[in-house]
Amino acid sequence: MTDQRAIGVFDSGVGGLTVARALEAALPHERLIYLGDTARVPYGTKSADTVIRYSRQIARFLLAYDVKYIVVACNTASAHALDALRAELDVPLMGVIAPGARAAAERAELGAVGVIGTIGTVASRAYQRALQALRPELVVFSQACPLFVPLAEEGWGNHPVTAQVARHYLSALQRDSGVLDTLVLGCTHYPLLAEAIADAAREVFGREVDLVDSASAAADDVVRDLAERGLGADAATADGGGGGGDGGAPAQRSRFFVTDDSRFGELATRFLGRRVDGEPAEL
Amino acid sequence: MTDQRAIGVFDSGVGGLTVARALEAALPHERLIYLGDTARVPYGTKSADTVIRYSRQIARFLLAYDVKYIVVACNTASAHALDALRAELDVPLMGVIAPGARAAAERAELGAVGVIGTIGTVASRAYQRALQALRPELVVFSQACPLFVPLAEEGWGNHPVTAQVARHYLSALQRDSGVLDTLVLGCTHYPLLAEAIADAAREVFGREVDLVDSASAAADDVVRDLAERGLGADAATADGGGGGGDGGAPAQRSRFFVTDDSRFGELATRFLGRRVDGEPAEL
Repeated sequence: MTDQRAIGVFDSGVGGLTVARALEAALPHERLIYLGDTARVPYGTKSADTVIRYSRQIARFLLAYDVKYIVVACNTASAHALDALRAELDVPLMGVIAPGARAAAERAELGAVGVIGTIGTVASRAYQRALQALRPELVVFSQACPLFVPLAEEGWGNHPVTAQVARHYLSALQRDSGVLDTLVLGCTHYPLLAEAIADAAREVFGREVDLVDSASAAADDVVRDLAERGLGADAATADGGGGGGDGGAPAQRSRFFVTDDSRFGELATRFLGRRVDGEPAEL
Repeated sequence: MTDQRAIGVFDSGVGGLTVARALEAALPHERLIYLGDTARVPYGTKSADTVIRYSRQIARFLLAYDVKYIVVACNTASAHALDALRAELDVPLMGVIAPGARAAAERAELGAVGVIGTIGTVASRAYQRALQALRPELVVFSQACPLFVPLAEEGWGNHPVTAQVARHYLSALQRDSGVLDTLVLGCTHYPLLAEAIADAAREVFGREVDLVDSASAAADDVVRDLAERGLGADAATADGGGGGGDGGAPAQRSRFFVTDDSRFGELATRFLGRRVDGEPAEL
């Protein structure tokens, strides 16, 4: 059984491109329809009600492109809106929090896990619930890191300021948690700061800390879920229904929509690893 | 001639509260209707088209409250949307860029002025045009400082990271400009970082640099413009048309609307200098 329809992917902006990149690598026959809500980014400082309202508008947009599956490639939207969308929509959905929690629960050897994310994700306690559902004995410590998103968008991954900000946040976490071996990057922007975060963690916790990237964990879970549901595309006819002829790989026929295009091209290169132009979307 | 109707004030979020604060101090008989578009903040990284569309929606909201005047208390919206709003609306409008440019042109003794602001404000070159219209011989150097808004919203005005970020941006400005005596804070968030910016400027430029706060310059110009137009309120009846009886000063009867209320109370205390709760607004 195959299904040649596209997979919808959305995020508050460009961070979800780290998920799109992992999906393209893991699922070379799938086409993606990506929507980055760049006009209203960031979601991490907004209330749950606002994030749910925006997520509904985006799901409606993606369904108009007849997607077979929706990946909520944003931790804040996963925390606040995934349950509401699942209750309302007929297509299967995957967020990034359950996969990130699964990966962390598999890897944590000490009894405690750290989670860093936006104000909204941390306040939702969604990682805490997901981790404790998997391993009830785990103690979960969280720290909101609101400056990480703008630092990632500025491309300051290797700037000394980012190192100092990372030490600030991880020290605050460490004062609560004591030693940790596993730290969830609970925001799709954070993989771009992974080196600075790993260095700060080594310094603050006095040991190597395993960083769990929820983007690649989510891609793994989407691969498994698509196969179980018989929703995967195959190579032969995955041409978008247009009769083929352009000859590109499916990933090159993926489409990327944005609600504001002012910096998408520049940021996409950083997050997706290749240049794409954003097509304008009206929600 | 007096006019007891309220003054509308809007911003992408909380930064415009620095303008509201200056207006309340300068015009104690006026009531304000403030709209902070906190659901879609920041505007500084968005395209002109998006900022114009959002500004129109907000002006419509304020006019439903029968405002007599609108203050665009946001540099990015002033840069991109003020001309469009003036062409479409019957009420007078004041932005923050013309007042900030006027104050800077009055104060600059050397032949160069520096302007720091968001990506959108700097790219618009609006300060450059306004300054050169006043003093054609002035050379204007600009620097976008995208991390200043999140640092101000985090309350990191006195944090060493802010000092380091300020040195980074002002050094980049100095490499273009050479020595300056006048620097326009071209974003309503920046007054909260004034101390760090002044310290960095002293270090980078090797002299005291006069920081021009466009918020207080705009309040001065609104006072003058209201008087010239005969639109000022007087103390006796400035009760919002409701028959009086609550006995508060007009400022205490000002109303503050937000499109997302998740952090407004906390941030308002920092920016307005007193606690207010945001009333929900649907645009």
